[in-house]
Amino acid sequence: MRRVAVLGSTGLVGQRLMAMLWNHPWFEPVPVTLSSDKAGKRYGNVVDWVIDWAMPEGLGELTLESYELNNLKELGIDFVISALPSSVATEVEPALAREGFAIVSNASSMRLEPDIPLINPEVNASHISLIEEQGKRGWKGFIVKVPNCTTSILTLTLKPIMDTFGIDLVAVTSMQAISGAGYHGLPAVKIAGNIIPYIKGEEDKVREETKKILGSLAGSEVKKAGFSVMASTNRVPVLDGHTLSVFVKTKKTAEPVDIAEVLSEFPNNEIAGMGLPTAPEKPVKVFDATDRPQPRLDVDIGNGMTVSVGRIRKDPDTGWIKYVALGHNTVRGAAGNAVLISELLLRKGLI
Amino acid sequence: MRRVAVLGSTGLVGQRLMAMLWNHPWFEPVPVTLSSDKAGKRYGNVVDWVIDWAMPEGLGELTLESYELNNLKELGIDFVISALPSSVATEVEPALAREGFAIVSNASSMRLEPDIPLINPEVNASHISLIEEQGKRGWKGFIVKVPNCTTSILTLTLKPIMDTFGIDLVAVTSMQAISGAGYHGLPAVKIAGNIIPYIKGEEDKVREETKKILGSLAGSEVKKAGFSVMASTNRVPVLDGHTLSVFVKTKKTAEPVDIAEVLSEFPNNEIAGMGLPTAPEKPVKVFDATDRPQPRLDVDIGNGMTVSVGRIRKDPDTGWIKYVALGHNTVRGAAGNAVLISELLLRKGLI
Amino acid sequence: MRRVAVLGSTGLVGQRLMAMLWNHPWFEPVPVTLSSDKAGKRYGNVVDWVIDWAMPEGLGELTLESYELNNLKELGIDFVISALPSSVATEVEPALAREGFAIVSNASSMRLEPDIPLINPEVNASHISLIEEQGKRGWKGFIVKVPNCTTSILTLTLKPIMDTFGIDLVAVTSMQAISGAGYHGLPAVKIAGNIIPYIKGEEDKVREETKKILGSLAGSEVKKAGFSVMASTNRVPVLDGHTLSVFVKTKKTAEPVDIAEVLSEFPNNEIAGMGLPTAPEKPVKVFDATDRPQPRLDVDIGNGMTVSVGRIRKDPDTGWIKYVALGHNTVRGAAGNAVLISELLLRKGLI
Amino acid sequence: MRRVAVLGSTGLVGQRLMAMLWNHPWFEPVPVTLSSDKAGKRYGNVVDWVIDWAMPEGLGELTLESYELNNLKELGIDFVISALPSSVATEVEPALAREGFAIVSNASSMRLEPDIPLINPEVNASHISLIEEQGKRGWKGFIVKVPNCTTSILTLTLKPIMDTFGIDLVAVTSMQAISGAGYHGLPAVKIAGNIIPYIKGEEDKVREETKKILGSLAGSEVKKAGFSVMASTNRVPVLDGHTLSVFVKTKKTAEPVDIAEVLSEFPNNEIAGMGLPTAPEKPVKVFDATDRPQPRLDVDIGNGMTVSVGRIRKDPDTGWIKYVALGHNTVRGAAGNAVLISELLLRKGLI
Repeated sequence: MRRVAVLGSTGLVGQRLMAMLWNHPWFEPVPVTLSSDKAGKRYGNVVDWVIDWAMPEGLGELTLESYELNNLKELGIDFVISALPSSVATEVEPALAREGFAIVSNASSMRLEPDIPLINPEVNASHISLIEEQGKRGWKGFIVKVPNCTTSILTLTLKPIMDTFGIDLVAVTSMQAISGAGYHGLPAVKIAGNIIPYIKGEEDKVREETKKILGSLAGSEVKKAGFSVMASTNRVPVLDGHTLSVFVKTKKTAEPVDIAEVLSEFPNNEIAGMGLPTAPEKPVKVFDATDRPQPRLDVDIGNGMTVSVGRIRKDPDTGWIKYVALGHNTVRGAAGNAVLISELLLRKGLI
Repeated sequence: MRRVAVLGSTGLVGQRLMAMLWNHPWFEPVPVTLSSDKAGKRYGNVVDWVIDWAMPEGLGELTLESYELNNLKELGIDFVISALPSSVATEVEPALAREGFAIVSNASSMRLEPDIPLINPEVNASHISLIEEQGKRGWKGFIVKVPNCTTSILTLTLKPIMDTFGIDLVAVTSMQAISGAGYHGLPAVKIAGNIIPYIKGEEDKVREETKKILGSLAGSEVKKAGFSVMASTNRVPVLDGHTLSVFVKTKKTAEPVDIAEVLSEFPNNEIAGMGLPTAPEKPVKVFDATDRPQPRLDVDIGNGMTVSVGRIRKDPDTGWIKYVALGHNTVRGAAGNAVLISELLLRKGLI
Repeated sequence: MRRVAVLGSTGLVGQRLMAMLWNHPWFEPVPVTLSSDKAGKRYGNVVDWVIDWAMPEGLGELTLESYELNNLKELGIDFVISALPSSVATEVEPALAREGFAIVSNASSMRLEPDIPLINPEVNASHISLIEEQGKRGWKGFIVKVPNCTTSILTLTLKPIMDTFGIDLVAVTSMQAISGAGYHGLPAVKIAGNIIPYIKGEEDKVREETKKILGSLAGSEVKKAGFSVMASTNRVPVLDGHTLSVFVKTKKTAEPVDIAEVLSEFPNNEIAGMGLPTAPEKPVKVFDATDRPQPRLDVDIGNGMTVSVGRIRKDPDTGWIKYVALGHNTVRGAAGNAVLISELLLRKGLI
Repeated sequence: MRRVAVLGSTGLVGQRLMAMLWNHPWFEPVPVTLSSDKAGKRYGNVVDWVIDWAMPEGLGELTLESYELNNLKELGIDFVISALPSSVATEVEPALAREGFAIVSNASSMRLEPDIPLINPEVNASHISLIEEQGKRGWKGFIVKVPNCTTSILTLTLKPIMDTFGIDLVAVTSMQAISGAGYHGLPAVKIAGNIIPYIKGEEDKVREETKKILGSLAGSEVKKAGFSVMASTNRVPVLDGHTLSVFVKTKKTAEPVDIAEVLSEFPNNEIAGMGLPTAPEKPVKVFDATDRPQPRLDVDIGNGMTVSVGRIRKDPDTGWIKYVALGHNTVRGAAGNAVLISELLLRKGLI
């Protein structure tokens, strides 16, 4: 059992993290807070548990630990998972890495820096080797980043298509759930019965992160994928689950049935056969039904780790492939990916 | 004053039609029903008025008239606006045209037939001349079609771009309101907090109708526009207002500021200066704010006849233009367009 | 294993029934349809599965059987659970009872007839003996009725209060989920962001059924409870879970802590210790938190069979007790209750 | 024209206030801020305008003025309307009253103090005379309070019933809109598809304020109404409009038709005939339809100043009267009431 400090444990991603780690076969979570007001309090008294998974029995009894180096050491922390806001993470995470901690982080800061692995495990587990470069920063530990939620979902579907048919261009419109904005991120009065066609910074993240994740490892760096990703990101009144409308111009001609075949189950993915507990049986599920996936019905497939794909079709005029992809934004797109990466690190002997 | 028979007057589009026609300066509505059960009853007793416009005082007192040729003649009907389901319209509308009635129809049947004008007035009022060809069918009257709701909104924004910069390719993802499914079309239990990524037939309509509406009149036929429109259409839990995420590959390079300029107010549109009462002051309103348009806030601009556009931006990698467009699906996309077309017909002396 | 014919298996209650029966240790479901169009088809091809429980693997492969006496006999049906609309049940259920079938029915018809047991198992399992009177109708089988959804939830909370403190008067306002209206019962356009303060017949059901369920068995009849239940029932935009705001005037003075105590776990209920598989560990869960229960967070407690109670407080001026109760309308309020009653019948050797 | 300083002008109530005052025939609004960050900025740059009324042309150009005594005097402020949070109002409002300002305040602080009028104009305009007592505090100005939103709606319906039939006891369950929680008051993730059965302090406000508003003026104080109001208050996913389920035990027997008659239009209310611009033609509208009022359809009746009542019925067992009342929480329940009170003050020569 490894003891993992969870930073940002009371937010929406933090709640998923704590629930996933609570009964994890390899990990034991320790909620850690940067707020002196909260340190020392019962987790159950501080958190406003609003996710649809029931809070596991006993979890509420944990004590929120103070974030201080000595305390982390005394607590016997083996590694850190961070769900801190990016503005805070910018300072905290490098400081911890310097002190020797391994950090798996959901924060968007540093994701594009060349020596920071940006990992969606089934897609690019091999990029983890970039951490070797981080020693040059004078760090005794290292940082691995979880991709942006939308990008995690998207890349899981683009990878098999890219490998088989090649990709020239992607246009994606997202319909993103309100849980993606965080607990305090979105006043109810703004989104009730409404769409907000703007999410700050999101389109750049999708564009840049996709190219890095789907890039190829060349020695000590990642060569970015050679195609462009045009994104339009929107907030919709759905609780959990980002739905993506994807248009792909493939290099080789592809029929919908071919696309369905390479996507289905994505068997030859980069963590296949590694026995990671959080890895879903099928990273991608393909629907035949004409009107699926739907977030309310399908977001929990594979305990939220499976991306669902449906409506694979070919535009009759242009030959572009169109499909709809759905993933759980705070599980596959955040907490679940962080846990899966942690499992990968442990398997590789890195934590 | 022209007396207009309204077919399908109790549905969601029918309610908008009745409200718009009730105090219209040129038209007087007569609700007509094909159901023998409803004929002879008070309109107010039959309709379940659920739209956000209050039912005008007095409207409920109208009698639902029976659909029979003799009755229509006795009632002194000058022309017909149809909001019938397509399956019913297929039979009813040609029969009426044969008998000499002018029909402005929202039904999707026949929209693509070469001699049937498919009119979004600001965009292609001139196509109305196609009706001259309909005499060859042996009709004494004629049929003009209102475009699909999403297509009405889309074409109003594509037209000025096409005219100034040319268009190579369009990819559009729609987030369509539940009112677009009609009163009975969507059980609450299906869409609450959900997205349904499929609307039967919709993507083909957007693709084909856009090319016809944006086509050029060449003698007695329309030469379709030469670019493709790839569409992905979705139902979202929003009451009124279809939001479109649009990607356009222009022929000539365009900057967002240029696009904003040609869209703003769309001054040189095909009905400018005609004094049609339902024509909005600005067919297109361009927002500078980063997070607009939003359906709950902006759907009623121009009494529902204005299409709002925002987030005009240029993809940094490809140069494609991206923007968000919003329009009222049962007003600009249906009832309002039907009334505006009727006004156009009257101005041209055709009714 | 008993083979149970499920009538109305494709509706919202039917879907819950099929899911609960599919892996049931004692029962095996056979979906039966009255529609000749559907008979013989795969269940999975007919049903539009929209509930939040995933359709169990294999369930879709069942064949919808035709409703005909010979067929039911050939299929080896042991008893029937009906989720038919009341209008249809009125004819079908007595006919089946006459032929010797035991029927557990969700339909509202006949619920108030003196010889028909109206059973909420933890509350009045003993009323089941009323079926002995049904022989006088010339029936070889019998009918047991599941109470109205709101009434099932309400009576589970009133019973322990009545037994300990006595009840003088109840006023209850319900906030009922859209799934309670059935698959086709509520157009999305009516309830989106709205409240409909009327549910046909519901208030009478709550008033009359509560008094019957909480009545005492006196020989071959039920003596109705002696207090009144004033109800106001409303539809709200919540998917699953009826929330009740309850005001109770008790006969003896009661403090909130006393009420909490008699409600908590409801240990001495009428099926305690019988080992019925669908009986929840705790029929009633009492929350201390000030803002619970909430339908989205708490509706699934006890697999939807537990009623949650919170905000127990005493009006400072009048001494009335106020509380909030929440139950799953299609599980505790319909399908789950039907299965639990079936288990009770089997335990008592009646099926 | 009186110049009115609006405190708290950018919140949800503040936005309604600014819109109502912008084209008011008697008043001219001056937005005033306590935040040194915001002072001096354009109102349109600071406010996030999210209400369904379009922001009036020109309003955005106003400058947010600094809250300082000298500045208020230089600005020629005649009186103040406050939409400050209660915690801030506690200090600010008495300080302004001391300096000679008349204040109409939405904040809940001080509402129950004996010399503070708590005014719902049609119900108890006469209570305004309490301000004479405020001189004893050493104030040169005075404070008048707007009631709690739910209480404003409730008392408008109880007053005519009380006057004609007498009232013994009231039980009310509210279904309150999310806009009642304020712009930042309710994270979207908490209320989406959910009910929160708790609103801090609300039930006490309804109980105490109702008795004060419906009390009778006896010399220099209000004698509270002699009946109790038991309340249960809930937050529901509706944007605007509080819906109340009301049970009333009248002293004299009343039939629904009698109740409808005394409620309809409430003609003999305390401001009838005074010509106040914001007074609705009908303070109360009574619906015959079985399923009204509904917030989405009826909240805007009388520009949000009319309370709608429907489903008036008599409990068959107890004779209690039941009805449903709906009012616009930020108009009738806050901003509109504040403006109406201001008009009353002007008519009475008090500002």
